[in-house]
Amino acid sequence: MKTLPTTKLGQQIHDFQKAILPGLSVDCVVLGFQRNKLHVLLLKWKFKDAWSLPGGFIRTDEHLDQAAFRVLKDRTGLDDVFLRQFHTFGDMNRRPAGGLTDQIRDMLPASDRPFVAWLEQRFITTGYFALIDIAKARTTPDQFSESCNWLPIDQIPQLIQDHNEILNVALDQIRNQLNYLPFGNALLPPQFTLGELRNLYESILGKSLDRGNFQRKMLRIGHLVRMEKKKAGTAHRAPYLYQFDQEVYQDLVQKGIGYL
Amino acid sequence: MKTLPTTKLGQQIHDFQKAILPGLSVDCVVLGFQRNKLHVLLLKWKFKDAWSLPGGFIRTDEHLDQAAFRVLKDRTGLDDVFLRQFHTFGDMNRRPAGGLTDQIRDMLPASDRPFVAWLEQRFITTGYFALIDIAKARTTPDQFSESCNWLPIDQIPQLIQDHNEILNVALDQIRNQLNYLPFGNALLPPQFTLGELRNLYESILGKSLDRGNFQRKMLRIGHLVRMEKKKAGTAHRAPYLYQFDQEVYQDLVQKGIGYL
Repeated sequence: MKTLPTTKLGQQIHDFQKAILPGLSVDCVVLGFQRNKLHVLLLKWKFKDAWSLPGGFIRTDEHLDQAAFRVLKDRTGLDDVFLRQFHTFGDMNRRPAGGLTDQIRDMLPASDRPFVAWLEQRFITTGYFALIDIAKARTTPDQFSESCNWLPIDQIPQLIQDHNEILNVALDQIRNQLNYLPFGNALLPPQFTLGELRNLYESILGKSLDRGNFQRKMLRIGHLVRMEKKKAGTAHRAPYLYQFDQEVYQDLVQKGIGYL
Repeated sequence: MKTLPTTKLGQQIHDFQKAILPGLSVDCVVLGFQRNKLHVLLLKWKFKDAWSLPGGFIRTDEHLDQAAFRVLKDRTGLDDVFLRQFHTFGDMNRRPAGGLTDQIRDMLPASDRPFVAWLEQRFITTGYFALIDIAKARTTPDQFSESCNWLPIDQIPQLIQDHNEILNVALDQIRNQLNYLPFGNALLPPQFTLGELRNLYESILGKSLDRGNFQRKMLRIGHLVRMEKKKAGTAHRAPYLYQFDQEVYQDLVQKGIGYL
């Protein structure tokens, strides 16, 4: 005869386990661009001084990719965005939500604590990265977080578990695929200066690029259309605004943009 | 009170389930090069007229990557080879070993059949690709296969489940990463002609490349060392043999070889 949970929280945890795939999760590296820097969306936890990537479990009735889209939608309000799977992390010692299980167990009477055990098993997680227009995102923390924040790429705190590694693998892969990813389209406003485009790539690569070289290269590619209007509110000589020729741009992302 | 299997096979299946992670598998796209064509290692099944990629489950005490290395070692005898994870397939309707479960169930008495049920649940699989020197591989079928064969890339049969899709995703990603993968090193003999190198890339890309252009490009990169000795046994003018300058080559694979 099976015992059942005696509390509502115990019952919720018990029911939740049945609705998801065992031992599997998704984690999302959500990237945006503001104040000339790449930013990463991170959750600040309620129960302890900890930070993590947004993540979640996979429902038995949804595709793995759908689970990642759902997490992204829940945290940013956005669904029509660039999201791509990049790696599955399968270390033997991966456990979900380091420390969180203890916190949940403490909220339960002794009789209900066994129903948390599945949360302490080994978990394999699949990483996804997303490219987001920060201006459009309405960030929302999950039930275990007090806030959901954009942190600049050069100020990432210690994250729980292997989340720093997950972030670093994402950034490495992004740098390797630079010519095949629609960064400009996804992260810049519709019209931008060549300086803003350069800043974006400098922030992704973590190094400065020669201004003159970059400009010459960019203009030669043929995917930029110069606007009549110049950038307003800038000090002396106002720089030109550009937008992408979408037809050329989409074709280039397939073939390799040739930024590097 | 739990019932236990009554047959040895039933007991084996029951025990095996406890030693592996639930609902997870690995599948390997093992690539080699012979007779001027890329080849893929495929298993021909015993029980029915079916083909599949080599694959397996993940032991509770091994890393996901280790599971893929184990599968590769079991099927080819090789472990010191290039193996890389490329994608995790999470469709809702993925089931392992299409049809195999029926075959196994038929081998069991009715009392033991429930112990096969876990094999019919949804499975998520992580795909890996390997680059193998066919001459060094000792291919060995698994317990459900009658043979383990190298099939040319343009003669791939219908595979079980989503294995054709897994293979195609691997090939797409390989083509996109062409400049960052050590194909020449992994798939060609230590000394080779420029024609053999061109054939290798033609077979991967599935299109022919201009002979003159290819040669000029290759020789300009500076990673090829020309041997004194020419290729023996060829018809009229014997072509030169080359080998890779390993120092230059390793550096190039990091930075992008620039073949395309």
